[in-house]
Amino acid sequence: MADFELMRKLQIANDSKIVMLVIDGLGGLPVEPDGPTELEAARTSNLDHLAAESLCGLSVPIGPGITPGSGPAHLALFGYDPLKYEIGRGILEALGIGFDLHDEDVAARGNFCTVDEKGLIADRRAGRIPTERNVELCKLLRGIKLPGVQVFAEAVKEYRFALVLRGEGLEGELTETDPQQLGVAPLPVNALLPEAERTAQLLNQWIAQAREILAGQHPANMVTLRGLAKNPGLPSMEEVYGLRSAAIASYPMYRGVAKLVGMDVLDTGETLEEEVETLKAHFADYDFFFVHVKKTDSAGEDGDFERKVSVIEHVDELVPTLLDLKSEVLIVTGDHSTPALLKSHSWHPVPTLFHSPYCRADQTEEFSEQGCSQGALGRFPAVDLMPIAMANALRLAKYGA
Amino acid sequence: MADFELMRKLQIANDSKIVMLVIDGLGGLPVEPDGPTELEAARTSNLDHLAAESLCGLSVPIGPGITPGSGPAHLALFGYDPLKYEIGRGILEALGIGFDLHDEDVAARGNFCTVDEKGLIADRRAGRIPTERNVELCKLLRGIKLPGVQVFAEAVKEYRFALVLRGEGLEGELTETDPQQLGVAPLPVNALLPEAERTAQLLNQWIAQAREILAGQHPANMVTLRGLAKNPGLPSMEEVYGLRSAAIASYPMYRGVAKLVGMDVLDTGETLEEEVETLKAHFADYDFFFVHVKKTDSAGEDGDFERKVSVIEHVDELVPTLLDLKSEVLIVTGDHSTPALLKSHSWHPVPTLFHSPYCRADQTEEFSEQGCSQGALGRFPAVDLMPIAMANALRLAKYGA
Repeated sequence: MADFELMRKLQIANDSKIVMLVIDGLGGLPVEPDGPTELEAARTSNLDHLAAESLCGLSVPIGPGITPGSGPAHLALFGYDPLKYEIGRGILEALGIGFDLHDEDVAARGNFCTVDEKGLIADRRAGRIPTERNVELCKLLRGIKLPGVQVFAEAVKEYRFALVLRGEGLEGELTETDPQQLGVAPLPVNALLPEAERTAQLLNQWIAQAREILAGQHPANMVTLRGLAKNPGLPSMEEVYGLRSAAIASYPMYRGVAKLVGMDVLDTGETLEEEVETLKAHFADYDFFFVHVKKTDSAGEDGDFERKVSVIEHVDELVPTLLDLKSEVLIVTGDHSTPALLKSHSWHPVPTLFHSPYCRADQTEEFSEQGCSQGALGRFPAVDLMPIAMANALRLAKYGA
Repeated sequence: MADFELMRKLQIANDSKIVMLVIDGLGGLPVEPDGPTELEAARTSNLDHLAAESLCGLSVPIGPGITPGSGPAHLALFGYDPLKYEIGRGILEALGIGFDLHDEDVAARGNFCTVDEKGLIADRRAGRIPTERNVELCKLLRGIKLPGVQVFAEAVKEYRFALVLRGEGLEGELTETDPQQLGVAPLPVNALLPEAERTAQLLNQWIAQAREILAGQHPANMVTLRGLAKNPGLPSMEEVYGLRSAAIASYPMYRGVAKLVGMDVLDTGETLEEEVETLKAHFADYDFFFVHVKKTDSAGEDGDFERKVSVIEHVDELVPTLLDLKSEVLIVTGDHSTPALLKSHSWHPVPTLFHSPYCRADQTEEFSEQGCSQGALGRFPAVDLMPIAMANALRLAKYGA
């Protein structure tokens, strides 16, 4: 684990730049025995050339065998132990739509659902109402006021919305209201700690009013709340590492996680080229850049091996431009593996390279699962990336005399 | 370390099977520089072929440089941190004879010894009396009754026996009575914690009565007690991993350790073939199988390089039968190394392979110390085996969103 006490104590300010390129879901699997992974199948002469000059290895996002969600996986890349700093699902849902979370916020993932005349759940997803209907219903829900706190109801997609309470003294130790079965009534919110009692009462008031407002809106005539959680209030990258940090990511979820660790989230476009342009435009303004590539993960989730290969090849084309920036440290990694074979995130460790004048390059000649498995970093915890990056940026003082 | 909280939280039930073949004392050393280890000398075309399709590495049983006993080494294989879950020697002695330990039991390893007319120890091993004599003496000792607890005295071998106390409120924080030198009297049992005071008193009563009963039984006219300890009360494999687990092992010690972690211990024979038959017969009934091969270790302990080679070759012949079972995960490993050169357990990491459809096979072509040292798992803690096995069995949910 990145030892923050040590980072805080040893951090040195200088002008060096660290660029971390995160290719989401980078790691893969062969589709047939002895076949290549997505990364191995891709023609990546630039990344291979870079690997030959780099320190390589396979990073383990959370721990052996553990498949990470996007939130914990990114926290690990930024050096935050994801088992220590848990981000609740409600917080991730709000981050995923780009909601501007504050430190004291409590957030929940809301579902519109259908209840019968007795108030028992008949459809947990309200017939998967279209997103447009969701937007209209959230406007109605915004009419609900609660004493002493602000309330935000924000449409996500289909039957899903985010509910955020903002105010002093809110706590997130709360039970969910979705009974996860049909024919029973939604549960009340219960406090798991005495400190969360008031928050539970406020949420139950909100639910009671929501029930009245939605009464005539069949099939979306009720709501359930899941993943209730408070903003974890993480220490910032600047405080921990002394790095003025910026995120370049087109998807709200990743912009949100970056904001949780205090990064400035830069405006950028949908394409890789636009992201690289944003990096160039702001290169003088920050010490650390998190550059996120989403489409590898999406292709993996879709089980589309070839599309994942072609996204990787697209990333490879942009490597010379990244190198032209001459950052003192360039890291190419992924947050986790998303093998097309599994159509999901997986536990497999992730090919990773460190490029810097002081990295002590190993003999890896190919940026791939096989190549990086022979790298001098071996299998290493993802939370080690930031301390190694800080060292290669000559931003850490000696420990002890 | 396997994080049991995480395992409990993420475990998923499905129909997949995990088979862990433990070749006891598998790792070895060359007898002369540049020579092969036992495993390298053995003709193991089946294991080599399997390694080529597997994820390989060298597992570290306890920690760098630490030579494990059989108990801790097996706990590590099952994912239990052996530095956290200590099993006392008295408990291991009882397990070693197949004694049916209960959770509240306190056990000691007993030695018959010889004392002179002043009560001072003249022979710590009572002239190594034959086991038959030991059995007779234990029958006499069973006449001793203690208030509120059951007492079991069970012959082990020569001068060694196991003493077990069973009842409410017994504690194992106790000192040993063997002074480990001649010419002094056996020590009393002392409590190391106040809670263990009553247990110490009971044991001292038992010793006083044993002294009277044995008075005329020279050379075995007294006893000493060592390794006094309570059953550690480990969480079960089913609770931690959700795996219905079975052990197939012919030696009592390994059956005992398996029982400590809640495995069902299956009836089996002395030979490898019988063990594999037992596995086949019960394959439908469990999720996880621990299959134990003892004779590699015995050969290593005897310093018999060639015999260890031939046991390994025998195991290799059975690999196709194991593969025919088509378990989703097959692990081949050892609990520790037992190099014939050292005639003892050793600290050397142990060749290990994981075979599954999702293991991401590495380039290891030979199941050997050298081959596995180049595997993608690198050197890894043995406690990581179970989480990786669970992942490959698709039995772990994603951590976080």
